[in-house]
Amino acid sequence: MEVAEILIDGKWQPAEAEASFHAENPATGEVLPIAFPVSRWSDCDRALSAAATAAAQLRNTAPERIASFLEAYANNIESASAAIVAAAHEETALPVSPRLKDVELPRTTNQLRQAAAAAREESWKRATLDTEKNIRSVFAPIGPVVVFGPNNFPFAFNGVSGGDFAAAIAAGNPVIAKAHPLHPNTTRLLAEEARKAAAECGLAAGTVQMIYNISNENGLKLVSDSRVGAIGFTGSRSAGLHLKRAAEETGKPIYLELSSINPVIFLPGALADEGERLARELVDSCLAGAGQFCTSPNLILLWDSPESEHLLADVAKAFSERPSQHLLSSAGQKHIQEGVAALIDAKAKVMTGGAPIDGAGYRYANTLLRATATQFIDQPHALQREVFGNVTMAVTVSDRVELKEILAQLEGNLTGSIYSAKSGADDDIYAAIEPVLRRKVGRLLNDKMPTGVAVSPAMNHGGPFPATSHPGFTSVGIPASLTRFAALQCYDGVREDRLPAILRKAISNPQTWRSIDGAWVRG
Amino acid sequence: MEVAEILIDGKWQPAEAEASFHAENPATGEVLPIAFPVSRWSDCDRALSAAATAAAQLRNTAPERIASFLEAYANNIESASAAIVAAAHEETALPVSPRLKDVELPRTTNQLRQAAAAAREESWKRATLDTEKNIRSVFAPIGPVVVFGPNNFPFAFNGVSGGDFAAAIAAGNPVIAKAHPLHPNTTRLLAEEARKAAAECGLAAGTVQMIYNISNENGLKLVSDSRVGAIGFTGSRSAGLHLKRAAEETGKPIYLELSSINPVIFLPGALADEGERLARELVDSCLAGAGQFCTSPNLILLWDSPESEHLLADVAKAFSERPSQHLLSSAGQKHIQEGVAALIDAKAKVMTGGAPIDGAGYRYANTLLRATATQFIDQPHALQREVFGNVTMAVTVSDRVELKEILAQLEGNLTGSIYSAKSGADDDIYAAIEPVLRRKVGRLLNDKMPTGVAVSPAMNHGGPFPATSHPGFTSVGIPASLTRFAALQCYDGVREDRLPAILRKAISNPQTWRSIDGAWVRG
Repeated sequence: MEVAEILIDGKWQPAEAEASFHAENPATGEVLPIAFPVSRWSDCDRALSAAATAAAQLRNTAPERIASFLEAYANNIESASAAIVAAAHEETALPVSPRLKDVELPRTTNQLRQAAAAAREESWKRATLDTEKNIRSVFAPIGPVVVFGPNNFPFAFNGVSGGDFAAAIAAGNPVIAKAHPLHPNTTRLLAEEARKAAAECGLAAGTVQMIYNISNENGLKLVSDSRVGAIGFTGSRSAGLHLKRAAEETGKPIYLELSSINPVIFLPGALADEGERLARELVDSCLAGAGQFCTSPNLILLWDSPESEHLLADVAKAFSERPSQHLLSSAGQKHIQEGVAALIDAKAKVMTGGAPIDGAGYRYANTLLRATATQFIDQPHALQREVFGNVTMAVTVSDRVELKEILAQLEGNLTGSIYSAKSGADDDIYAAIEPVLRRKVGRLLNDKMPTGVAVSPAMNHGGPFPATSHPGFTSVGIPASLTRFAALQCYDGVREDRLPAILRKAISNPQTWRSIDGAWVRG
Repeated sequence: MEVAEILIDGKWQPAEAEASFHAENPATGEVLPIAFPVSRWSDCDRALSAAATAAAQLRNTAPERIASFLEAYANNIESASAAIVAAAHEETALPVSPRLKDVELPRTTNQLRQAAAAAREESWKRATLDTEKNIRSVFAPIGPVVVFGPNNFPFAFNGVSGGDFAAAIAAGNPVIAKAHPLHPNTTRLLAEEARKAAAECGLAAGTVQMIYNISNENGLKLVSDSRVGAIGFTGSRSAGLHLKRAAEETGKPIYLELSSINPVIFLPGALADEGERLARELVDSCLAGAGQFCTSPNLILLWDSPESEHLLADVAKAFSERPSQHLLSSAGQKHIQEGVAALIDAKAKVMTGGAPIDGAGYRYANTLLRATATQFIDQPHALQREVFGNVTMAVTVSDRVELKEILAQLEGNLTGSIYSAKSGADDDIYAAIEPVLRRKVGRLLNDKMPTGVAVSPAMNHGGPFPATSHPGFTSVGIPASLTRFAALQCYDGVREDRLPAILRKAISNPQTWRSIDGAWVRG
């Protein structure tokens, strides 16, 4: 049987495979034709050696060349977009348009270009000069970065093209991408565009490498290998926590995005003013991508009131009327079934949905559940279980005390949204609950759904554990995301001509912001 | 038996002790009179509850008030300095002058005042505004910080007065300080000055708390408690790694400074030019504080040459002639004995010293060992064992290939120093070895010993594991050290009047640097 090759040290090479696997078309259940390898450790070892060599070479590579690579790669992706989008559609069942072609692919190339601009500007390095004491410091590449991409964004979070990839490369590190096994062919096509761009730009051969799949055991070994500088992971909580333990045992920084239920709070005045619009906004946000977004609103909090009942009835109706989109996999469908069953066990009631949909491929009925505040407070752990997909739970509260108690019981989340009346009628409740919600979430929104994570320098796609592994970092937002993959390096009394160019008194890069004796200056 | 009280929720209170302990005077071995408690979990629990309350109150406390506290505390320490220095001298045997009175105490108050300035300026929060998308983010307090201070700096790294304390408070967090059990009375006197200053400035009662000692088991429980935001630890590698595992298991950021042997490399030209001066500089650095500094040079690398033999003979002579200072404890003396025995087992040869010194208190002869490059490369693990104290090992190399191999085998270190000829004669060797050393150390020095860690915005007192737990952070250097104790908080579409003042368009604090649409601006 012919098996796809892996990208090692700049070349497509046969894997030393311990097994092979095929992707499926989740819209049909059909097994796709290409066989992909499950690599043995020897493949990881080869990738690590090449990455270590590349890391040393990249330290002497001009930022301009790294930036050119990221731009060339973005251009290549656009040139090959038809094939890439087709492959992703086949492997994920996500709609070609607008999702894959018009939203996610442009987002991905935009991220690569923003990362290129950050690499070129160099301000992310936060060069800091104490000219009196002749002490200077700068963020420098941390070493080879292993990126595990998730199942739900085949381009924008892909290990070989997504935000972690772009940030790690822009910071001057080689990347070993571990493809998500649900979309190996998409990853293969992207990796080929990266390979070509790297070769065109003369980057070190081991700068971009990609393997398709490895055993759990080899995953743990990979993240704790001495040649690794850091790890980026987006995916399930259980897999992430295993990798976290292994990496941290050997002192490796690992940045994980694990789980989030993204509470959305509708305060009474907001519902009274424009309940119908809010219902539509909520439905759109919940069902986008069949709810398979890390920022999908899985928990809705609202007052016991006729307006709330009206909104929930509207939402339930829309959920039942809108077609259920295909899920990414049979495993995803199974996890939803298990998750909904667990919520029902914990006394949540199904308002609509609650069952898989028969027929071709993997679907689950758009599902709305509800529970009372008392129930939630009784079983906060069980009722804040993340169900990754088109499943949302509403919890009604009788007063702000109950709401604050629920918020206090929440684990860390990526986002939290509060809708309140424009008139100011909800302002006192807002003031009372904001401090409790604020410390539970990385991004606090007003009058806005959490889906749609803008690539902005001010974005925080992060949050307290277990949303992520460290509340001080973001995985989206350039240049902030680059710092994750950097080590602080100080030069104390080092002779001027031996300093990195960015730390010399006369700066060669007029775009760079530097902190000199306490003031930020450029040029 | 009367036992000293612990500082909980703004008041000195009796501990619920499971045992008590006494400090010793390490210069005499005399047991000191005051009994101090080993707290049960209930004391930790009380401290955590008060800290959680204080954390919420501190979020609404003006930075000016926090800054005033830090300054008032610095003033109080100066007013009480005679008693504090006397207590520290009694508990540590460190010289009153210049060490405690003229160096460490001023350093400590300087750190507190720099932290006050950073709190007042607020630039450390890195307020970032994307005005077009109305997304804004800022670093905010992470929550209660537990600080474990080390044995070797009773003021400047003390859990209740040192760099981690100053950074955590300046970032707006309450601190639970765990005293080092070798200097409880010093810590008690400092904590009292902090308590008075906090009360004068009207800070939340639980802002500064202090316990003297807890069991290892309660230490692990403390760092993984849900009320804790982050942990700072400076101390031994084995204790630190246990705390690291416990904290990370529950997703708590923990910043550890663990161990470092601080390689110092003398290139041939430098030795030829001024070997005698370098020998003196090295001896001074190695023996400062009886070598009980985290940046003490424990590994000297130099060429096989007559000049090197000359330097080593000079150093050995000075080591044998200079009086051995008292160590901090009998345990420290025992660790040195074990460490030297292990180095000898690994074939290092004693040039001078190598035995404890009889008589009052705890001393160990100033010790110089040596090994060859071949020996080091054969047993890199055994021969880079940190021996915390007045013990240094020299390794001679026959060429740069051997030197690079040794550097490649080093674990992460806080510092690495290279001395080279002013004439440029060593420049090619420097260029060959710098990249290898650079990725192993947090601070690279030229022609300078690593002891003496300036409190500068450009300082990095950090480094790759196991020197610290994350190469992106520094524990010395303000404002950089504050960010460790902060969470990134994003506001997306949040109404202007609900934003923290620092994120509003019209800034109220004219000193603050903010990043607005990609440019750093102030005022």
